[in-house]
Amino acid sequence: MTQVLTDTACALVPGHVTGCFGVCRADDPVATGSIGAGVAIGDPIEVTVRPPTTPDGGIQADKRREHPYGQTQFNGEHLTIAPVDRLRRILGVSMDIEVTSPFPLGAGFGVSGAVTLGTALATTVVTDRTATQAEITKQAHIAEVEAATGLGDVVAQATGGMVLRLEPGADGTIDTIPAQGRVEYLVLGDLSTPAVLHDDTEALTAAGQQALERITTTPTPETFVQAANAFAEDAGLYTDAVVEVIDAVEAAGGQAIMSMLGETVVAFGTGLSDAGYEPAMTTIDHAGARLGSDCF
Amino acid sequence: MTQVLTDTACALVPGHVTGCFGVCRADDPVATGSIGAGVAIGDPIEVTVRPPTTPDGGIQADKRREHPYGQTQFNGEHLTIAPVDRLRRILGVSMDIEVTSPFPLGAGFGVSGAVTLGTALATTVVTDRTATQAEITKQAHIAEVEAATGLGDVVAQATGGMVLRLEPGADGTIDTIPAQGRVEYLVLGDLSTPAVLHDDTEALTAAGQQALERITTTPTPETFVQAANAFAEDAGLYTDAVVEVIDAVEAAGGQAIMSMLGETVVAFGTGLSDAGYEPAMTTIDHAGARLGSDCF
Repeated sequence: MTQVLTDTACALVPGHVTGCFGVCRADDPVATGSIGAGVAIGDPIEVTVRPPTTPDGGIQADKRREHPYGQTQFNGEHLTIAPVDRLRRILGVSMDIEVTSPFPLGAGFGVSGAVTLGTALATTVVTDRTATQAEITKQAHIAEVEAATGLGDVVAQATGGMVLRLEPGADGTIDTIPAQGRVEYLVLGDLSTPAVLHDDTEALTAAGQQALERITTTPTPETFVQAANAFAEDAGLYTDAVVEVIDAVEAAGGQAIMSMLGETVVAFGTGLSDAGYEPAMTTIDHAGARLGSDCF
Repeated sequence: MTQVLTDTACALVPGHVTGCFGVCRADDPVATGSIGAGVAIGDPIEVTVRPPTTPDGGIQADKRREHPYGQTQFNGEHLTIAPVDRLRRILGVSMDIEVTSPFPLGAGFGVSGAVTLGTALATTVVTDRTATQAEITKQAHIAEVEAATGLGDVVAQATGGMVLRLEPGADGTIDTIPAQGRVEYLVLGDLSTPAVLHDDTEALTAAGQQALERITTTPTPETFVQAANAFAEDAGLYTDAVVEVIDAVEAAGGQAIMSMLGETVVAFGTGLSDAGYEPAMTTIDHAGARLGSDCF
């Protein structure tokens, strides 16, 4: 039976930039996922869950019939985020979702995972479905895997920091690399996650495993950057536009990587600014997904 | 061979208030620890590691001979924190440590664990000892267990949030409860951790296991508070002064617990203020231990 949300709650979830990854599929979506390394960044994405607009809510009536589990507004625009719809169905909770995100969709920031995780987390405190962070992460991971929009963002976003996914799936072992500081990014275009993940991923996964092994041998931010760049090269994921920007950052003495999977360059410190670009700025987020409003 | 630190680094680590716990001893300090539940709170404790003052450093010369691995300054005072001295010996690194802490030592905020973890983390980025967060946490946990100053603070402080220690030790399973908001605290006195932990802990551990089971069955902040209070009662750890304050907070409609192991009352929301006390204020810390300075 569908529960209709009657109260409002908010969650904050970082974006997640993947530097390298390997695809690990299993029959169970919980065990399906990716190994790899990435970095959680914020200002966080704000996800607010609200009671759904009523079927006779004036201009929303058509949309209400279209979205029986509620609507999603992303930075003011109504749109569909597949794993979020799936999560609402899995939970059996009807609610509207309002997202304020500094990061665009489809540019390699794991926004679909963040919104799904934020929805699962915020829903927990306004329904009688109590759950721990691990259970919430699992719900969101399953929805994202089944929607084929991501494989590893959710678990990394639940953790925060510079995250190593040593094993795939919702229950896989996670660790982090000590890292701190300013992050700059420049969105050049977009790549479709489902398209890349449905290609033959054997060579990509071998490159991802090699990159992860390199990072775990010497777990520092510098190794992360080097391994991510070697991975992008080996896996054939670089675009000309990305290579041009990364080369310019390196020529200016900085460090940058391509975000998987988006046509986005992410630099650490002032790498993109120093190279003369006008990037957006943020920082590493260490908190991971958390509630945005008092729960006492 | 002892390495002498030549560079400076800083780490930020939350305090940790334990609500309930059980003691689990093993031959291996890595596996020794506690199960239980607690909450990481900040403003974080700042731990700065520096090159040690030289043996001929004027007035410091005596102290230098006393502390071959370097000195520790805590809120401006020179003192000895046993697990920190042990960690410096284990790592074989000589350095001075400067701590700025909003929380006092010996009052149930896990300060010894925080300083030890912060030292291990900050040291990683200014030596060639690269390590992941899990390895750093293990180093600090071992030092704290061997010094008998704590059993579960370090792993909780590495994680952040309202932390469930489902299994003991540095590698034990950890989860968190969704929780957010203001925390107030009032220090009434101190209790000695080593004294309590060296008593017969069988009844205490049975009470701790029962409390943890109650929390995992319904993982909410409210259950955490109820289970922590039942634990303090069952384990016979309440003092009269603590009971008086908790009763007053509850009479004013609030929620408060006793911090294990200190004579400190911790309230959520505005519980202590509402009851007419003048508490210190802070918030739940979700980030856990992280570097305090840029590492790029």
